[in-house]
Amino acid sequence: MSNRAQAAEWEPRYAGRAEHMRASEIRELLKLLEEPGIISFAGGIPDPALFPLEAARTAYAEVLSGAGAGAALQYSVSEGYQPLRQWIVRHMDRLGVPCDEDNIVITCGSQQALEFLGRVLLSPSDTALVTTPTYLGALQAFSAYEPRYDELRPEQGNRTPASYTERAAAGGGSVKFAYIVPDFANPTGETLSVAARKRLLDLATELDIPIIEDSAYAALRFDGEPLPAIQALNVAQCGSIDRAHTIYCGTFSKTLSPGLRVGWIAGPKPLIRRLVLVKQASDLNSATINQMVMRRLAETSYERQVTAARVHYRRRRDAMLAALERYMPKGATWTQPQGGLFVWVRLPEGCDGAKLLERAVAEAKVAFVPGAAFFFDGRGRNTIRLSYSLPGEEQIDEGIKRLARMI
Amino acid sequence: MSNRAQAAEWEPRYAGRAEHMRASEIRELLKLLEEPGIISFAGGIPDPALFPLEAARTAYAEVLSGAGAGAALQYSVSEGYQPLRQWIVRHMDRLGVPCDEDNIVITCGSQQALEFLGRVLLSPSDTALVTTPTYLGALQAFSAYEPRYDELRPEQGNRTPASYTERAAAGGGSVKFAYIVPDFANPTGETLSVAARKRLLDLATELDIPIIEDSAYAALRFDGEPLPAIQALNVAQCGSIDRAHTIYCGTFSKTLSPGLRVGWIAGPKPLIRRLVLVKQASDLNSATINQMVMRRLAETSYERQVTAARVHYRRRRDAMLAALERYMPKGATWTQPQGGLFVWVRLPEGCDGAKLLERAVAEAKVAFVPGAAFFFDGRGRNTIRLSYSLPGEEQIDEGIKRLARMI
Repeated sequence: MSNRAQAAEWEPRYAGRAEHMRASEIRELLKLLEEPGIISFAGGIPDPALFPLEAARTAYAEVLSGAGAGAALQYSVSEGYQPLRQWIVRHMDRLGVPCDEDNIVITCGSQQALEFLGRVLLSPSDTALVTTPTYLGALQAFSAYEPRYDELRPEQGNRTPASYTERAAAGGGSVKFAYIVPDFANPTGETLSVAARKRLLDLATELDIPIIEDSAYAALRFDGEPLPAIQALNVAQCGSIDRAHTIYCGTFSKTLSPGLRVGWIAGPKPLIRRLVLVKQASDLNSATINQMVMRRLAETSYERQVTAARVHYRRRRDAMLAALERYMPKGATWTQPQGGLFVWVRLPEGCDGAKLLERAVAEAKVAFVPGAAFFFDGRGRNTIRLSYSLPGEEQIDEGIKRLARMI
Repeated sequence: MSNRAQAAEWEPRYAGRAEHMRASEIRELLKLLEEPGIISFAGGIPDPALFPLEAARTAYAEVLSGAGAGAALQYSVSEGYQPLRQWIVRHMDRLGVPCDEDNIVITCGSQQALEFLGRVLLSPSDTALVTTPTYLGALQAFSAYEPRYDELRPEQGNRTPASYTERAAAGGGSVKFAYIVPDFANPTGETLSVAARKRLLDLATELDIPIIEDSAYAALRFDGEPLPAIQALNVAQCGSIDRAHTIYCGTFSKTLSPGLRVGWIAGPKPLIRRLVLVKQASDLNSATINQMVMRRLAETSYERQVTAARVHYRRRRDAMLAALERYMPKGATWTQPQGGLFVWVRLPEGCDGAKLLERAVAEAKVAFVPGAAFFFDGRGRNTIRLSYSLPGEEQIDEGIKRLARMI
């Protein structure tokens, strides 16, 4: 190859597909957090103090011992390790979604679930319905397939089906799905009411589109009674997961461990069959050994881990809400999450989250994520996402005090 | 959602993107192999007897102990675990490709590498150049992005650059890359000569396209001296991996373990930066714990494992070539692999590999993969792929004897 070929050539060559470059901004942000002395409300990742290390050590030792040990290091079927799918079937049944193994495909975390669904459902110029704000990683996963976005407002009352259809048609495509995090959403911490879940189902029926239900945080409820999964409501209406149009994305990342990269999709069998082919073409199978270990962890530790996580994060949520109440100036408002890892703060009008971050890191050694990244349309400049998952209660108090001073 | 919504609706809904449905045929085939008594030459997967179980047990126990244990179960950076990338940098240097960590991104096996490269490089109607036959999984990965294929013939002399360009233009796109497995290819077991590697580089330069070099089997050489990687030849010509247009896909699946799903891409930094964003949007990161373990296995066991695998598979290759020589009827010809896991057999004219398989399984309890699946254009009906990776030497002799009788 000649020396004419310059590295710079690669960039335009690979710029064929749009991608959310916000990812790299967030990346820079996360680097900041490695600086010592910073109190970070940015992460949103589980507290490693909760990880079931002892159980994981035992599980890895066990799957690597005995006659079947070789299987743990071998290729395996694309749909996923059968005993793990059987555990998930029982889990879904407890959530009000009776199904069988053929309704489940294992993915590398729910991020891969979202990427697969974007790939299967979206073509360029199609429309995906999302809330504003919504999970940044979902926008990243979907945006590789160049959709347009339109706004879902299940709590306040969605627009009419015709208005969604018409706007999508004006954009050169049609509405392909509605994506939602109904419980303790990333980034707002808010939970969708049962009435809003039903309104969303009605809208999806009218539009004849699937709902992608991202349940990443659903197990982490601190207060009140669990609300039914949208898929459970859908199954109750139509009698079977195979007749329902809800696609449920589950994960062990917030309950057992994100480092094993094990999540799943529960949906109608024809969709799952197609996703198994996508999985096969994408990476053949999720790591065999981790699926075998996750099944053991699920059986031995799921309930205990979820209970411990609820107690742990509830304390931190309480500390953060108390500190916000104590220190925040007038004009700032925030959500009251009943679970999950996030509080969403609306700053006084005119206050810019991104600029605040720069100053907060430099002058107060406090970090968070500016809210605009979670909007597909660049709104939300006066919002910020605070996570209470990593700092201890005293740090939370101190960090919010420092942050409030900057506002 | 109303009961009108029938499961059958899902299939057309998700049929928007073309996909290699051959996958499901192969799947059916592989199920056959679970039947007891079958001698299988179909697999092409490593012999689990070679897996470094003891080293893996130790490595998992170590990464889950001590102060850093939590990190093994946590999210990690999308580009991959730094010490593993550092090992790969040293490995690439030994292959004649000096590079640094920023030239490496970790993937879930090289299958994910191929999928990512298809996603980044291909748009519908673009052309990918592949050999006939080629790796089925590559066709599956690329075909999600709806390319056309054209034929690469590096050994026999490729066509003129203009002829590739014109055919691609007639198909409504342009040539986007050349994909090749240069060493002990799946499915043929053949190795590209140095002269052919150079011809391929010349063609890629003329067409101004990258070469995707899939090195899955390169470490498994039984006879003769290693040939330089195409990327090494390319770097020798142009002075730096960042100026070279070869993208190297490496994997630990055939040397240490496929069940951990750890592979990598080595390429120019701007491409790698882009692939890191693709990785982030696709599954955030490869399983953290497996990357930490793979780094330990690479450091403690790579040389020993590769040596053991060479001895092990060489014996089986020898047994298979001897049996073919002994039993095969006139008119059948086969390759003489110097490494890897496969022998490629051309049956006498008029003999159909798929039909032979049906009979061979039913009447002789022998399985293999019919060759046509490895051609993008459905040729190769009188070819079959035999793998000697799983059956022992006596089984190989017996299986080939039975198979030869059917032909």
